[in-house]
Amino acid sequence: MKTLRLYDFLPSGNGYKIRLLLTQIGMPFERIEVDITKGESRTPDFLGKNSNGKIPVLEVEPGRYLAESNAIMTYLSEGTEFLPYDPFLRAQVLQWLFFEQYSHEPYIATLRFWISILDKAQEYHEVIEQKREPGYAALMVMEKHLSNHAYFVGERYTIADIGLFAYTHVADEGGFDLTRFPAIQDWIERVKAQPAYISITEELTSSS
Amino acid sequence: MKTLRLYDFLPSGNGYKIRLLLTQIGMPFERIEVDITKGESRTPDFLGKNSNGKIPVLEVEPGRYLAESNAIMTYLSEGTEFLPYDPFLRAQVLQWLFFEQYSHEPYIATLRFWISILDKAQEYHEVIEQKREPGYAALMVMEKHLSNHAYFVGERYTIADIGLFAYTHVADEGGFDLTRFPAIQDWIERVKAQPAYISITEELTSSS
Repeated sequence: MKTLRLYDFLPSGNGYKIRLLLTQIGMPFERIEVDITKGESRTPDFLGKNSNGKIPVLEVEPGRYLAESNAIMTYLSEGTEFLPYDPFLRAQVLQWLFFEQYSHEPYIATLRFWISILDKAQEYHEVIEQKREPGYAALMVMEKHLSNHAYFVGERYTIADIGLFAYTHVADEGGFDLTRFPAIQDWIERVKAQPAYISITEELTSSS
Repeated sequence: MKTLRLYDFLPSGNGYKIRLLLTQIGMPFERIEVDITKGESRTPDFLGKNSNGKIPVLEVEPGRYLAESNAIMTYLSEGTEFLPYDPFLRAQVLQWLFFEQYSHEPYIATLRFWISILDKAQEYHEVIEQKREPGYAALMVMEKHLSNHAYFVGERYTIADIGLFAYTHVADEGGFDLTRFPAIQDWIERVKAQPAYISITEELTSSS
């Protein structure tokens, strides 16, 4: 089997989803760092890999690229314990992954990026406050579900959990107070206790 | 087979994706109108169906609900000609559907909603102009792809096309000038020429 190549940015939660899943599946990969804060995902070369100019991008085989973190996770988890086989459970996994990209990531991840990665809390003050309420609304939807479920789908750990964990567990870096959400906090501990867990900025031995 | 029930809002492009796909698959369904402009998707009853308070929601069987338009489409198209069987092509379909929800819908659909559905172009003037540039950027990504592809994945019509068509073909209702995008315009005509095509606000005979 060829080694997969992951175009990635270490602080990125979207990149982390793929790193964590590949590590838990036990699939080796090579990591190529792309510093998005320096425009490295907008070069002509990178746009040839993903015309939308975003990481992560997985090079499945030389010259064959796949973008969008949740599409990459779905592809990689096919046939593994991380993606249910039952059609309705699979659909629920996708439901939560689309929830993550539409109702969660633009608020939870974006505030972390502006505040803790770019260090522009002052400059972006106004738009940060606009994004605060919908961010908390997304956390409330998660809290409600986790109040009577151990995981998001089928009562076991799947890519729906990885997808939502990536930015939720570091939401405090975007100024969100997670102590208001006890069920989310318990779930975070359950995810961290999974076999082969790695932290978000853990440098991997297989990294380039 | 039980009749599927779709909780929907007629002007919604996200709802339209499901209506169009079900009609093209030839699967009967009952449509329940939920007027999101009157808060009908935020009632306790509706939040019991989708705690995120958004349409469309598909009732697969009594009491079993699925939310997120692109998750619903993936579920319904399984085993049909509208979703490829090849794993990498399927992954590309999901890539475009996640692109749609993250990089396209929040700009293209939201401006149409504010300008043409809510009629609040004046009130939302400032934020509308902030969303103009990323909306055009998404259309440019589509234009580039369609300049040498007839459809988004595998050179045939799939749910990736339905997902992107839903709001793109009415982008002018959000003030986007589609005449700048000849490849998108040609693709819109190819989609409209598909068998069993219905328009976005076409009242269906099976509607409730």
